Amino acid sequence: MAYTYSHEHRVRYRECDPMGVVYHTHYLDVFEVGRTEAMRHAGVRYRDLEAEGIIMPVVEVEVQYHGPAYYDDLLVVDVHFGQMPAVRVPIDYTVHRAGETDTLVTGHTTLCFMDAEQRRPTRPPDRVREAFAPLLDA
Amino acid sequence: MAYTYSHEHRVRYRECDPMGVVYHTHYLDVFEVGRTEAMRHAGVRYRDLEAEGIIMPVVEVEVQYHGPAYYDDLLVVDVHFGQMPAVRVPIDYTVHRAGETDTLVTGHTTLCFMDAEQRRPTRPPDRVREAFAPLLDA
Amino acid sequence: MAYTYSHEHRVRYRECDPMGVVYHTHYLDVFEVGRTEAMRHAGVRYRDLEAEGIIMPVVEVEVQYHGPAYYDDLLVVDVHFGQMPAVRVPIDYTVHRAGETDTLVTGHTTLCFMDAEQRRPTRPPDRVREAFAPLLDA
Amino acid sequence: MAYTYSHEHRVRYRECDPMGVVYHTHYLDVFEVGRTEAMRHAGVRYRDLEAEGIIMPVVEVEVQYHGPAYYDDLLVVDVHFGQMPAVRVPIDYTVHRAGETDTLVTGHTTLCFMDAEQRRPTRPPDRVREAFAPLLDA
Repeated sequence: MAYTYSHEHRVRYRECDPMGVVYHTHYLDVFEVGRTEAMRHAGVRYRDLEAEGIIMPVVEVEVQYHGPAYYDDLLVVDVHFGQMPAVRVPIDYTVHRAGETDTLVTGHTTLCFMDAEQRRPTRPPDRVREAFAPLLDA
Repeated sequence: MAYTYSHEHRVRYRECDPMGVVYHTHYLDVFEVGRTEAMRHAGVRYRDLEAEGIIMPVVEVEVQYHGPAYYDDLLVVDVHFGQMPAVRVPIDYTVHRAGETDTLVTGHTTLCFMDAEQRRPTRPPDRVREAFAPLLDA
Repeated sequence: MAYTYSHEHRVRYRECDPMGVVYHTHYLDVFEVGRTEAMRHAGVRYRDLEAEGIIMPVVEVEVQYHGPAYYDDLLVVDVHFGQMPAVRVPIDYTVHRAGETDTLVTGHTTLCFMDAEQRRPTRPPDRVREAFAPLLDA
Repeated sequence: MAYTYSHEHRVRYRECDPMGVVYHTHYLDVFEVGRTEAMRHAGVRYRDLEAEGIIMPVVEVEVQYHGPAYYDDLLVVDVHFGQMPAVRVPIDYTVHRAGETDTLVTGHTTLCFMDAEQRRPTRPPDRVREAFAPLLDA
């Protein structure tokens, strides 16, 4: 029971440092894009959640760097939801170069559904769970 | 009639690109910090303006790059207000390495006082003009 | 005689500020992506130029902000080359929301072909001019 | 046996997101600045290491977000070295608002001394260990 979405990212010049490789913080930006598109693919737009008064702050991140990515590399980010979204949403990420198998980066983030007004954790709307159900069963 | 404030910025690793020099966009971030501190020095905190319902979006930027800055360089950014803040606030910037005279970067930004609610241009509060008056006369 | 390439950019959360709009500096990042893809479309990969010892630093930027873009907006960036690349490469940009006609942002950058070793301006390789010729004539 | 260095960081507008708080990735930038200044305070400039052919890539990061920081907040980042730098350098971070005691963010990074030419892990230069010795004993 898991939903994995693959997102592609082209490495940009501004993301590379004097070592000639992607600076470590930028993978977190790629993770944001990957999970946003994974949610959109599931039928949940984060902008709609915000309009309903729900925000999803990141409460925890972990990243391990196994190997470098270079300028203009095409990266594939696999965004992995291993369980039904609850108050907390754990997501795993693995990054490899398109057409290669070596894992360059692995990551994990925990997001939290939160009431924007009260800034308190809250359960996800039913429609989020309904959107993820068929993908997690697949 | 002018007010010039000098802000120091240490170049960070994340700001440098594979050419080994500061990537061009980061100077705009340094300009933001410089003008914020110039205003604070004048007695005006931007956070207080926001709390009063006034925002100051950037409506125009120009930057010319004359020479490279390198990792760990200590840069001096001169932030120059040439006139009393009105609806529009033009600001000029020059950047040089501490202890040297060559100008590395010159820039110009135009900010605009705006009513946050209505998103319409507005005159600056009197206390902004009062804060800048003695500095501009000096 | 001009070559215009259209690039799409989805606005990301990290690009938006407390005013709820795209922070002004991020358009320069979008311009970088746009011109890189415009060059790739013309048959010139910037990474290949670097491998040949040629770099293309930005020597000048100008941006005018006419209206705000919001989180998750799909933006269209038109990247416009109005002349054959020479030592200097002027490029114009206009940004609008997909499906709308209002121009949100206009920009201009000047890049410079430079010998990476000597850090001196240089003429672009013949193959760059040959790649752009049919597009500029079209 | 530990060396803790305190670094101050003023929250900038570009670091804040539509929730009005510091976007989660920017703490990693603050950590970079903090450890660079902690090393400088110990007598080790990272730029000198690079000039000697040694680089220090980040191989692992972890961050926990306990509470929000707001625009213009003055943050204190405590950078904590719990052991003598070896091939791997583990560093802990805690962030709180100046004048308050609540911990907003905790983090951990592991850096690795690496031969820049061969891209292989290497032992730190003796002078690094000599520079840290008195601070760790204190």
